[in-house]
Amino acid sequence: MKKVAFIMGAAVDLKFLKDGIEFLKERGIEVSVNALSAHRTHAAVNQWIKEIEEDGTEVIIAAAGKAAHLPGVIAAMTIKPVIGVPIKGSALDGMDALLSIVQMPKGIPVATVAIDGGLNAAVLAMQLLALKHDDVKQICINYRKELENEVLEANKAIVAEYNK
Amino acid sequence: MKKVAFIMGAAVDLKFLKDGIEFLKERGIEVSVNALSAHRTHAAVNQWIKEIEEDGTEVIIAAAGKAAHLPGVIAAMTIKPVIGVPIKGSALDGMDALLSIVQMPKGIPVATVAIDGGLNAAVLAMQLLALKHDDVKQICINYRKELENEVLEANKAIVAEYNK
Amino acid sequence: MKKVAFIMGAAVDLKFLKDGIEFLKERGIEVSVNALSAHRTHAAVNQWIKEIEEDGTEVIIAAAGKAAHLPGVIAAMTIKPVIGVPIKGSALDGMDALLSIVQMPKGIPVATVAIDGGLNAAVLAMQLLALKHDDVKQICINYRKELENEVLEANKAIVAEYNK
Amino acid sequence: MKKVAFIMGAAVDLKFLKDGIEFLKERGIEVSVNALSAHRTHAAVNQWIKEIEEDGTEVIIAAAGKAAHLPGVIAAMTIKPVIGVPIKGSALDGMDALLSIVQMPKGIPVATVAIDGGLNAAVLAMQLLALKHDDVKQICINYRKELENEVLEANKAIVAEYNK
Amino acid sequence: MKKVAFIMGAAVDLKFLKDGIEFLKERGIEVSVNALSAHRTHAAVNQWIKEIEEDGTEVIIAAAGKAAHLPGVIAAMTIKPVIGVPIKGSALDGMDALLSIVQMPKGIPVATVAIDGGLNAAVLAMQLLALKHDDVKQICINYRKELENEVLEANKAIVAEYNK
Amino acid sequence: MKKVAFIMGAAVDLKFLKDGIEFLKERGIEVSVNALSAHRTHAAVNQWIKEIEEDGTEVIIAAAGKAAHLPGVIAAMTIKPVIGVPIKGSALDGMDALLSIVQMPKGIPVATVAIDGGLNAAVLAMQLLALKHDDVKQICINYRKELENEVLEANKAIVAEYNK
Amino acid sequence: MKKVAFIMGAAVDLKFLKDGIEFLKERGIEVSVNALSAHRTHAAVNQWIKEIEEDGTEVIIAAAGKAAHLPGVIAAMTIKPVIGVPIKGSALDGMDALLSIVQMPKGIPVATVAIDGGLNAAVLAMQLLALKHDDVKQICINYRKELENEVLEANKAIVAEYNK
Amino acid sequence: MKKVAFIMGAAVDLKFLKDGIEFLKERGIEVSVNALSAHRTHAAVNQWIKEIEEDGTEVIIAAAGKAAHLPGVIAAMTIKPVIGVPIKGSALDGMDALLSIVQMPKGIPVATVAIDGGLNAAVLAMQLLALKHDDVKQICINYRKELENEVLEANKAIVAEYNK
Repeated sequence: MKKVAFIMGAAVDLKFLKDGIEFLKERGIEVSVNALSAHRTHAAVNQWIKEIEEDGTEVIIAAAGKAAHLPGVIAAMTIKPVIGVPIKGSALDGMDALLSIVQMPKGIPVATVAIDGGLNAAVLAMQLLALKHDDVKQICINYRKELENEVLEANKAIVAEYNK
Repeated sequence: MKKVAFIMGAAVDLKFLKDGIEFLKERGIEVSVNALSAHRTHAAVNQWIKEIEEDGTEVIIAAAGKAAHLPGVIAAMTIKPVIGVPIKGSALDGMDALLSIVQMPKGIPVATVAIDGGLNAAVLAMQLLALKHDDVKQICINYRKELENEVLEANKAIVAEYNK
Repeated sequence: MKKVAFIMGAAVDLKFLKDGIEFLKERGIEVSVNALSAHRTHAAVNQWIKEIEEDGTEVIIAAAGKAAHLPGVIAAMTIKPVIGVPIKGSALDGMDALLSIVQMPKGIPVATVAIDGGLNAAVLAMQLLALKHDDVKQICINYRKELENEVLEANKAIVAEYNK
Repeated sequence: MKKVAFIMGAAVDLKFLKDGIEFLKERGIEVSVNALSAHRTHAAVNQWIKEIEEDGTEVIIAAAGKAAHLPGVIAAMTIKPVIGVPIKGSALDGMDALLSIVQMPKGIPVATVAIDGGLNAAVLAMQLLALKHDDVKQICINYRKELENEVLEANKAIVAEYNK
Repeated sequence: MKKVAFIMGAAVDLKFLKDGIEFLKERGIEVSVNALSAHRTHAAVNQWIKEIEEDGTEVIIAAAGKAAHLPGVIAAMTIKPVIGVPIKGSALDGMDALLSIVQMPKGIPVATVAIDGGLNAAVLAMQLLALKHDDVKQICINYRKELENEVLEANKAIVAEYNK
Repeated sequence: MKKVAFIMGAAVDLKFLKDGIEFLKERGIEVSVNALSAHRTHAAVNQWIKEIEEDGTEVIIAAAGKAAHLPGVIAAMTIKPVIGVPIKGSALDGMDALLSIVQMPKGIPVATVAIDGGLNAAVLAMQLLALKHDDVKQICINYRKELENEVLEANKAIVAEYNK
Repeated sequence: MKKVAFIMGAAVDLKFLKDGIEFLKERGIEVSVNALSAHRTHAAVNQWIKEIEEDGTEVIIAAAGKAAHLPGVIAAMTIKPVIGVPIKGSALDGMDALLSIVQMPKGIPVATVAIDGGLNAAVLAMQLLALKHDDVKQICINYRKELENEVLEANKAIVAEYNK
Repeated sequence: MKKVAFIMGAAVDLKFLKDGIEFLKERGIEVSVNALSAHRTHAAVNQWIKEIEEDGTEVIIAAAGKAAHLPGVIAAMTIKPVIGVPIKGSALDGMDALLSIVQMPKGIPVATVAIDGGLNAAVLAMQLLALKHDDVKQICINYRKELENEVLEANKAIVAEYNK
C-alpha cells in the first residue's frame, strides 16, 4: 500500500491542499484528509497519529498558517516523515508560518516546502514513496516529463510570437 | 498560595529566565522551574501539565527559541494564563520565536512579551497574581516605585554632568 | 464584579474588536469600550485610567496600529494587566504595531496577542478573570469544548468527502 | 537664547547621544540632557515637559530603543519639534525602535533620523534653529564646508595611492 | 512670509501629498508644488533648489517611493530642513523608501515621517515654522485642539453604544 | 548586430517583460524571447545557452520569481552579462526573488535590477550595448532626454495648478 | 545499501555539516561528501549527479548560503529526495539562503530544514531511509529515546536546583 | 584603453573594494579609485563625473552603505553602466543599502550585486568590458577556469577525507 495522510490546521486551509490531494489520487496513491487543530483539538490529533501509525500511512503532509505548530507537533510524535506546508493565512503573508515550520529544534525536523506549496508537498511525498516503491519511481519520472512538456509547449507560443 | 511555573524549551535558555525567577522568589512568590522540550519530551510535558494543574500553580511562563512551539502547546492544554518569552536562540535574532509565539490561532492565546523578556514575563506574572492576591498588588506598586527611583537616580548623575 | 475595559487608538479600529467585545458580553462579563488616542487625547486617556481604577475594571484590552503606543502608555500608568492587540492599520501589515507593543522595556510588560487578534485578547482576558472568579473558570472550560467541537464538526465533512 | 533639550529612554543610551551633545555645545548652542523613561517615570517626563516649555528650549531630541515610545509621547505633549533617534538596543537591530518612532499617527509627527543617528539629530536640530537664528545659519554653512573638506581630504590619500 | 515647498519624485505621488498641501493652504501658509525626479531631471532639481533659496521658502517637504533618493539629494544641497515622506509605491510596501530616506549618512539628515505620511509632513512643517512665527504657534495649538475634539467626538458615539 | 535575449522562468512572467521587449524593438535592437524553467526544463535551458552563444546575442535578460534560480544558473554557463529581474510572483512580494538573484556567490555576478523592473532591465541592456555600438550611445542619450521631457511636462500641469 | 550523499556549495560550509555526517556514520549509514558549486563547477555537479544515480545513494543533503541555488539545481536533475540546508553565510543571517531554497517552483520541491540545520538534515535523511529499511526505523526510534533522555537528564539538574 | 572607475561613499568602505580593485589591476585593466560622498561632496561628484566622461572610463563601480544614494545619483548623470555595491555599514546589515541601490525608478537602472560584493562587481565590470574587447573575453574565460579549479581542488581534500 502507498498512502499519504494530509492534515491541516483548519478546514479553510483545504483550498491550498486540494490540488496536491488530487495530484496523488490521480496517480493511484491513497490519501486520507483531516482538518484538526494542534491547539483546539490536541486530543483528536493524538488519536489521529495513533490511527495513521496503523493504517499504512507512509508520509504525512501537514499544513498550517500563522503560529503553524501543527507540522512540528506531529513530527514530534512519529518518525514518519512530515512535510510542512506554510499557509499564507495572516497579516504577515505566511512568513510567520514559514519560520514556525522550518526552524524546528534539534532532532525533530519538518521537511518544509514553499508558502502555499500544497502541490509541491504532494510531489515531494511521491518522491519519498519512490524510495520504496519502484512503480512510483516511474510515476515521478513521467511527471517530470509532463512538467517539461508543459513548459516547452507554452514556450512555443512565445517563440512563435517574438522570434521569427 | 501564589505560584508561578517556569518552563523552557532547553536547559540553555535558563540564563534568559534567571533574573525573572529571582525577581519572583525575592518577592515571596513560589516558583517551579523545568526545561522540557515540546518536541523531544512531549510525554514529559503532558505529565508536567497534569502536575501544575494540581500543585497550585496559577500562572505559567514558557520560554522557547526558533520554532518555539512550547508556549502554544502548553496553552492548548490548560486554561491557566501562559506568558510566552521568545528567545533569541537562532540565526534570525528571535524574530522566528516571536512570530511562532504571538501569532496563535483563534481561541488559544499566549500572552507574549519582548524577545529575551524573561524579567518582564515575571513582572507580568506578578501583575496577574495581583488580580487575586491583594498583598501582591502592593508588591506591584512598590516595584513601580523602585523602577521609578532607579531611573531618577541614574538621571541625577546625567543632569549633574550636563545641565549646570 | 467582572469587568474588562476595551480601549483603541482610533474609532476605525472598532471593527477589529467587535467580536471580542461580543464574546465577553455573551458570557456575562461586563465591558466598557472607548476609542482614545494616546497622542491626540492624552489628557482624556489619563482621565480614563483614573476612572477604570475606580469602576471595578480588572483587565484592560488596548488595541492600536502603526506606532501603536497606546497599550504601553496605559501599562505605564496602572498595574492592572494590559493585553495589547496590534492592528494591521498601515503599509507595513501590522508588523510596526506588533513590535511597538511587544518590545516593551524592563518593568512594564504588555501581554501581546496576534496581529488583529481582538477575539484572542478577549479570550485571554477571560482566562485572567478565571484566576479569581471560579465561575469564569467554568466558562473557559466550556469555551474550549465549543472550540473543539467546532473543529471536529468541520472535520467530519472533510472526512466524509475524502476518506471513504 | 538657542537651546536644544536631549532626552533618552535610559541612561545607557547616553553613549549614542554624546557626539551630538558635544556637536551642539562646541557650536555655542545650549543643551540640556535627561534620561527619563516614558513608562517607568511618566510623572517625571510630564514635569520635564513643563520645564522645557519655560526654559527657552526650542527643539527636542528624544532617543529610545525597543518599543521606543518616548519621542512620540513627548511629541503629543508639546508643539515644539521633536527629533526622534531610534537606538539599536535590542535583538532586532533597532528596526523595532525605527518603526515605533517613525510610524506616528495623524497629527503628531516625529522627525525621525537614522538608527543610532544621534549626531544627525543634532545637525538637524541646528538646521531647525537656523530657521530663526541667522548666526546659526552661518554655522550650518560652515559645517557643510567642514564635512566636504573632511571627505575631500580623505579622498586625497586614496587618489594618491591608486590613481597615479 | 511663511512658505513650504513640496516636491515629489513623480506626478503620480501627488495623491499622497494633496491633503498636506490643503492643510497648509487652509491655514494661510504659502506653498509651492513640483514633481521632479532626482534621477530623470537632476538639472531641473538643481534649478529648483536655486529658486527656493531665493523665494522665501523655509521648509521643504520631499516625497518619493522605491529607491527614494530625492529627499536626500535635496538635503545635500541646502541647509533648509527637508522633511522626507516615504511613498508606498512598489512591491515592498514602502519599506524600501523608508530606509532610503531615513538612513542618511553623517551630516545630512532628513526629517523622516511615516510611510504615506503626507499630512504629518505638513503638520511637522507647520511646527517648524512656529519656531519663528508666533502666529503659526497659535495655529499649531488650535490644530491640536481640533484633533483632540475629533477623537473625543468619535468616542462619544462608541461610549453611547457600548457603555450604558 | 545588436541583440538581447530575454528569458523568463514561466510564460506567466511575460507581462512583466513586455514593455522592456517593446522598448528595445522600437529602438532597432533585435531581441529573442523564451520562457524556460531552470528546473523543469534544464535540458532546454542548456540548449538555449548554446544557441545564444552562436546567434550574436550580446546581453541576456533573465526574469524569475520565488526561488528565482534562472538568472544565476544562466550566468554560470556564459560570460555574457546577465541582467536579473526579480518577479513579484509569490506570497513574499518578490523579496525572495530579489535575494535569490542578487546574492550570487564569488565569481558569478548577476546584474540585478528592481523587483518587476523589466523595463529598466531593457534600458540597462541598451547601456551595455552602447559600450560597443556608438549608434546605441546616441539612442541612450535621446532616451534620457525623453525621460526628462516626460517628467518636465507632467510637472507643468502641477505647477500650473498649484503655483500661481 | 543505505547511502546519503552530502553536497555543499563551498568547502567552508563543511563545519555546518560535520555533525550531520558523523550522526549518520555512527549509525551505520554510508555517506559521501562533496563541496561543489552549482555556479562555478556546474559541469562537476552534473557529473556528480550521474554518479550518485549509480552508486546506491538514496537521499541527498545539499547545503548552501547566500543565493543558495545548489539544492534546487540538484533537485531539478534527479527524483531522489533533496534535503536543503540554508547556511548563514552572508550579511543577511541566512534569510536569503532560506528563501532561495524553500520557495521552489511547481513540481520541483526541496525538503528544507532550519538555517544551519545540518544535523536535522541528517535526522530527516534517516527518517526517509526508514521508509524502506526496517532496521533504520529502529535506529530512529532509539534516537528519539536518546533525545528524550538527554532533555530529561538536563532537566533533573534544574529541578534539583530550583524545585525543592 | 580598458578602464573601470571605482567610487565609494566613504573612505572606510575601501576595505570592501580592495580585492575588486586588485582583481582588475592584476588582469591588466586600468582603474581609478575615489571616495566621494553624494551628499557631503556633491560638487566634487559632479566634477568627477565630468572627468570620467573624458578619461576613457567605460564602466563605473559605485559602493555605498545605509541610504546609499551614490550609485543612483551617478547613474542619473551618465549613460555608462553603473554597477552598485551595497555595503553592510549600518545596524540593518546592508538591507537598507541593497534596497536603496536596486529599487531604482524607471529609466535609470543600477546593475546591483550582492551586499559587500566588491569582487563580483569587478568580475561583472570585466564581463561588460568583454562585450567590446576580445582579449578581455579570454580573461573572463580563464577566470572561470580558475574558479572551477579552485573549487575542485578544495573538493579533493574533502573527498579524500570522507569518501574512501
